[in-house]
Amino acid sequence: MKFEVTILGSSSATPIFNRNPTAQVLNINEKLYLVDCAEGTQQQMLRFDVKASRIDYIFISHLHGDHYLGLVGLLSSMHLNGRKKELKIFGPPPLKEIVDLQLKYSETTLHYPLEWVFTDATAKGIIFENQDIFVETIPLDHRIPCTGFLFRQKRRLRKLIKEKIEQLEIPVAYYSAIKKGNDYTAPDGNVYQNSTLTIEPAEPKSYAYVSDTLYTEKYLAQINSVTLLYHEATFLNDMLDRANQTHHTTALQAGEVAVRVNAEKLLIGHFSARYKTLNELLEEAQSVFPNTELAVEGKTFVISE
Amino acid sequence: MKFEVTILGSSSATPIFNRNPTAQVLNINEKLYLVDCAEGTQQQMLRFDVKASRIDYIFISHLHGDHYLGLVGLLSSMHLNGRKKELKIFGPPPLKEIVDLQLKYSETTLHYPLEWVFTDATAKGIIFENQDIFVETIPLDHRIPCTGFLFRQKRRLRKLIKEKIEQLEIPVAYYSAIKKGNDYTAPDGNVYQNSTLTIEPAEPKSYAYVSDTLYTEKYLAQINSVTLLYHEATFLNDMLDRANQTHHTTALQAGEVAVRVNAEKLLIGHFSARYKTLNELLEEAQSVFPNTELAVEGKTFVISE
Repeated sequence: MKFEVTILGSSSATPIFNRNPTAQVLNINEKLYLVDCAEGTQQQMLRFDVKASRIDYIFISHLHGDHYLGLVGLLSSMHLNGRKKELKIFGPPPLKEIVDLQLKYSETTLHYPLEWVFTDATAKGIIFENQDIFVETIPLDHRIPCTGFLFRQKRRLRKLIKEKIEQLEIPVAYYSAIKKGNDYTAPDGNVYQNSTLTIEPAEPKSYAYVSDTLYTEKYLAQINSVTLLYHEATFLNDMLDRANQTHHTTALQAGEVAVRVNAEKLLIGHFSARYKTLNELLEEAQSVFPNTELAVEGKTFVISE
Repeated sequence: MKFEVTILGSSSATPIFNRNPTAQVLNINEKLYLVDCAEGTQQQMLRFDVKASRIDYIFISHLHGDHYLGLVGLLSSMHLNGRKKELKIFGPPPLKEIVDLQLKYSETTLHYPLEWVFTDATAKGIIFENQDIFVETIPLDHRIPCTGFLFRQKRRLRKLIKEKIEQLEIPVAYYSAIKKGNDYTAPDGNVYQNSTLTIEPAEPKSYAYVSDTLYTEKYLAQINSVTLLYHEATFLNDMLDRANQTHHTTALQAGEVAVRVNAEKLLIGHFSARYKTLNELLEEAQSVFPNTELAVEGKTFVISE
């Protein structure tokens, strides 16, 4: 099952010439999930060929402008481009008030249903589930209410051993039960143990989106053993005081989080505009967690094939 | 006196790959005036080297997103970049409500004073004046309250004829009175007529920003004899019905407006995303008003040297 993330913006509060503020799009089994939607996200989607019409879910972490100011423009373009199907937005309750006010004064009545799911930054919770995944909020510690999002694949059914199934000429009608772990009783009365007919499915993969936050203990347990961890890394560690003061994380701390939660891989992003090049941030995170990459615009990272 | 406009966005409602929605910046005697501020205006300013710190005045025509959704991001970046000096915003009254709501939920208290001047789309009025210019609102006919803006240079003082002044050895203390049109009485009692000492200053130049509107009579008199007319031209004339229905103008109509008001030059912009190339729009406007150019991103048009 395809499970990958494409970065649309890597900048923190202010944009710089070649970096946009935060937005990412997940493709999970050919469904698109937008995570944060900073100003310019529409243009980034055009640039990287992400079709807005394919997005059915938008997750907004918090109400600092660099994470949501592109939302109203995107909703409006979807409307003008003829969208009819429902769009679901997950975010802090006041986001609806902000969107409604702007639609009111532009005298826009969207031609498609907008469904709201409000996040609660005080306690983690599953806010979405479909056949492929669960999405949980990750309560973070920022200056205003803020949640990250944990996308977890569901455990898949056991995989049939094709040769064995063919050899025993097992009828298709039995496949579903066998995939669920049942043994198979043949017409001659022989019982075949499930373990001889199937193999374990791949371990469920996961993606944690952690932005923006102070580096604290509180979200570590929840993202333990995550496959791919995106963690903000606004500053180098020589600006730790500033990071603490603004409730952000340094690249070194992001690396430490990845070590402590035993992530497979780390992406860092949300870089301060003061860094014209990003090598130092990458090297600092890699000094504690070597399997780190920069979450830069247009790059796609595969979580599972 | 420098008087020029740089185009930051030429697209209507939805952005397309190489076109941003509407924003323009005027440089009038080295002061910068931003006119509309669509999503992505900050990025466009970075691209075309327009310093946000130099902008002291922002004019918003109306509350369709493609004309103002970049405002909150720009205000926030000015704040984060240490702005202290006042910023004045001219626009429809609900714009303040929209900005205030977003600042409230991001818990942002701007470090600089924001002064608001509300526009009234029902009657024209002078909303700004300094030593260089007057700015008038142009009431337009759009689906929601909308004003254009007319920037008019003030009439300048008469210009001294340098050789004559030097020949008569006129003391500097008299210059100001002579520039205002006074005659000069020399120490010997001789009176020199002002017309022998000065020449007429250049005629005041003007820039009319007309977006978005149905093509009607109502704003024509006000922009008569304008130097540079920017007029929206959302559609080709084969989509006149659609233009009427959405309260927009066609390229042909924009050309007709330029003819009727006797403009020196016409810029057309606010192009529908359906037009991947713009030649047809240009040719259509030029068919009635030859001195037309496309108001495309990054181009600067000189109104006066």
